Amino acid sequence: MKFLRSHLMGQWHPANSETGSVVVDPTTEVSLATVSSSGVDFQAAVEFSRTTGGSALRELTFSQRGELLIAMSKAIHSRREELLELSMRSCGSTRKDSKFDIDGATGTLYHYGALGKELGDSVRLADGEGEPLGRNAVYWGRHGRLSRNGVAVHINAFNFPAWGFAEKAAAAILAGMPVITKPASSTSIVTERCIDAVVEAGVLPEGVLGLICGSVGDLFDHLTGQDVVAFTGSASTAFRIRSHENLLRQSTSVNVEADSLNAAILGPDVEPGSEVWNLFVREVAREVTQKSGQKCTAVRRILSPIDRIDPLQDALCEEMQSRVVGNPFEERVNVGPLATADQLSSVLEGTTRLREVADLIHGSGERIEGVGAEQGKGYFFGPTLLKVKEGVTDDLVHDLEVFGPVSTICPYDGEAATAACLNSRGKGTLVTSVYSDSEAWTFDLLQRCGSWSGRFYLASEKMASQAPGSGVALPQSLHGGPGRAGGGEELGGIRALDLYTQRVALQGTRRSVERFIGDR
Amino acid sequence: MKFLRSHLMGQWHPANSETGSVVVDPTTEVSLATVSSSGVDFQAAVEFSRTTGGSALRELTFSQRGELLIAMSKAIHSRREELLELSMRSCGSTRKDSKFDIDGATGTLYHYGALGKELGDSVRLADGEGEPLGRNAVYWGRHGRLSRNGVAVHINAFNFPAWGFAEKAAAAILAGMPVITKPASSTSIVTERCIDAVVEAGVLPEGVLGLICGSVGDLFDHLTGQDVVAFTGSASTAFRIRSHENLLRQSTSVNVEADSLNAAILGPDVEPGSEVWNLFVREVAREVTQKSGQKCTAVRRILSPIDRIDPLQDALCEEMQSRVVGNPFEERVNVGPLATADQLSSVLEGTTRLREVADLIHGSGERIEGVGAEQGKGYFFGPTLLKVKEGVTDDLVHDLEVFGPVSTICPYDGEAATAACLNSRGKGTLVTSVYSDSEAWTFDLLQRCGSWSGRFYLASEKMASQAPGSGVALPQSLHGGPGRAGGGEELGGIRALDLYTQRVALQGTRRSVERFIGDR
Repeated sequence: MKFLRSHLMGQWHPANSETGSVVVDPTTEVSLATVSSSGVDFQAAVEFSRTTGGSALRELTFSQRGELLIAMSKAIHSRREELLELSMRSCGSTRKDSKFDIDGATGTLYHYGALGKELGDSVRLADGEGEPLGRNAVYWGRHGRLSRNGVAVHINAFNFPAWGFAEKAAAAILAGMPVITKPASSTSIVTERCIDAVVEAGVLPEGVLGLICGSVGDLFDHLTGQDVVAFTGSASTAFRIRSHENLLRQSTSVNVEADSLNAAILGPDVEPGSEVWNLFVREVAREVTQKSGQKCTAVRRILSPIDRIDPLQDALCEEMQSRVVGNPFEERVNVGPLATADQLSSVLEGTTRLREVADLIHGSGERIEGVGAEQGKGYFFGPTLLKVKEGVTDDLVHDLEVFGPVSTICPYDGEAATAACLNSRGKGTLVTSVYSDSEAWTFDLLQRCGSWSGRFYLASEKMASQAPGSGVALPQSLHGGPGRAGGGEELGGIRALDLYTQRVALQGTRRSVERFIGDR
Repeated sequence: MKFLRSHLMGQWHPANSETGSVVVDPTTEVSLATVSSSGVDFQAAVEFSRTTGGSALRELTFSQRGELLIAMSKAIHSRREELLELSMRSCGSTRKDSKFDIDGATGTLYHYGALGKELGDSVRLADGEGEPLGRNAVYWGRHGRLSRNGVAVHINAFNFPAWGFAEKAAAAILAGMPVITKPASSTSIVTERCIDAVVEAGVLPEGVLGLICGSVGDLFDHLTGQDVVAFTGSASTAFRIRSHENLLRQSTSVNVEADSLNAAILGPDVEPGSEVWNLFVREVAREVTQKSGQKCTAVRRILSPIDRIDPLQDALCEEMQSRVVGNPFEERVNVGPLATADQLSSVLEGTTRLREVADLIHGSGERIEGVGAEQGKGYFFGPTLLKVKEGVTDDLVHDLEVFGPVSTICPYDGEAATAACLNSRGKGTLVTSVYSDSEAWTFDLLQRCGSWSGRFYLASEKMASQAPGSGVALPQSLHGGPGRAGGGEELGGIRALDLYTQRVALQGTRRSVERFIGDR
């Protein structure tokens, strides 16, 4: 069987083991490849990235690093058809969902490439303006951001094997840090091909981008306070990484993007059948079913005024009727299987638990047969809606993230204070979407629970035609959230570079400080 | 004996125990008080701060919060003489060193008070400019910072019982977060009197400022992802706090300011006897001996071109001759005792270890008798200079922070690359000071090791008359550093508010987003 390779120290490393984790097509359950990083010398790999890759990168200006990103984007884009096909086969994503990942990757790389060009011929970022520190203007202070002298280790989730790698790598490389990226094994075929495209195009200096297919072994033991770890995945793995003694002792920066029970909130002013109502129904249904619900930004909790529950339930169920679950290579299918057998078990188990506190109003709660798939094969689970049972005040629906096309309707009394309280019970989320034409109501809600989410998507009639939905992590806007969501920050335009740079206060004569920070 | 009290839930709590840790006058070794938080209900205290204190604070504008800080500053300043006397008695600080702490506290509170007034009648901070997110200008994005809905727990070091409490509290309160502050027991008398002054003046809403004298008990078990911990102290305690399971699981933000082997670097262009030379000698001697060297920003490593070693050694030893160690209440004494018996043991032990790799060139390496102190009493240790032995390449001098008036001269070849490498071997520091009139040499050094320190103090002839020394943590400039220094960030003007606020991306119509973030 095909063995996926790692790419480290400027070379491809095949695993030196006969065994590894097996990658399976989630539609047919046929094995596609084996993944193992056995035999890799992680200490040497880290050192090589830091020295060879890091030195090369720090010699370049932002503009030059931006050109690298654009070249990466083009190299990956040139394999678009192959990558879409691989995504459909190995992730079970429909062609449309695959584009979301692959084009998301090239688009984000391009976006940061363009940002690099805007930043121009400097190697340092100014942070705020300068100011006198003494009684006259001789003694002067200003802050700047300097590239960290280390390596950025990126550990990604299975759901976005291309975009997940690309959005992290774009920020690190632009900031001047070399990257070692480790995709989730189950969908790493896609990442491996992305890296292969970049390597083949020869667009990056040696050591700037490494790939680990398989486990990270003892890599964390070799990191220092100048290195960075950015992780996307489950809260339990995040806890394991964060507790790593060496990372704690070295004060290695660890950025986490973990579980998130994102809420979509329907304002009490929204009349059934209105434009905002229709937008809510359309977008919520999409945010529940896109990528078969395997999206960290998916809507897990649907907050509706209690007097709108019946028409909303009807409208959402009707919208769900148009979903066809099955083999992503079939034209009429618009929801693919879950990515792995483990994901299916976990979603089945999670849905069963949710049913203790909520009634099923759409879906069976069980595995289904996929359209165009062999009988009994494939990790299929249909779009599933639940509604909190009357009188239930349990926190389960706010605590349990079921990572599939599953969402629960939670009624509330129409008050901003109540909606804010329910939103907060998610204990920290990536995104909250609010649908209302009442600015006063929306602002009241934001003021009450604004610090519980990393992003608020405010939908109203005026932007209905422009709205991309709350699930898209745009490069311009922060991606990350407090508490359960991990407390991390990614993207957000130039903010993404914060993690990979050290903020430094400069104190000296005005001339020296300004010349250094201003890079003149 | 006097029992120090905690102040929580709007009341003074005397300890309900007969025992506790004993606070001692480090000059006379006479017991001054006992400290214990036994009997405190930490869960209730945290909840009270969050709800009663947090709600009150978030109702206020920045300007109003700034007024609270100015009122705190005035209340503490009104007790200045009492506090200076207490500091001399309980910390062993000279009157001058005591002013550094007490006036540093009131000055920093005032500085943030004035910043609050500048920020005006808003309750939210804008973070960058808005921008269109779609093809036209309807769909708009901008970032803001919103007060976290939690409590800020501050754990401070023994060396600055007033300033340490004040600089953290100023930032949190201005950001809209209530504070529970816990001073190091050994010098907590000073903090207790500061809080007493604030309570007596009645300037803060209930629950905004709590005090724990003694251990924090099970407090960390009750924190959430909206709470913040800011710690200053040893790397080993920092490790214990950071490893706390609940904080890791909740993604509670933990800011750490820990060990730091700050370097003062003499450039190869500086001629003996020149103005910059004299500044170097004067400032290094002060940074080694001020607060008896018990300053996280003290100079621990003196990097000198090898061909300047002899005159530098002579000049530094001569400067040290003017130091008189003894009872801080004696007029002619300018270096007090170490703060505790433990500190003395630790400094004795550390100096002995350093002598394995470095020769003693000033000081005895042993406890000395203090001028004006009773024979055999007091934790006195004289200013101590060492010089790395020829041929030694050991890392000990870059690794071992001896928290007293102790510093080691490390020769280098005059190259910026070598100085940068030596500086980096400290594995991350709070501040590096560079003394040179060559901008090219200084910039070369900065470019090579800039990411290893949180602050660079660039001293040159032009600023000699204005220079405050590298050890002052000005409210305008970042205080914190990477790696060994803890990876945290405090002060830095408005940057101090980052820790206490959640960065949030807003997406919606241009009008709504701008109105909310712009607070209009």
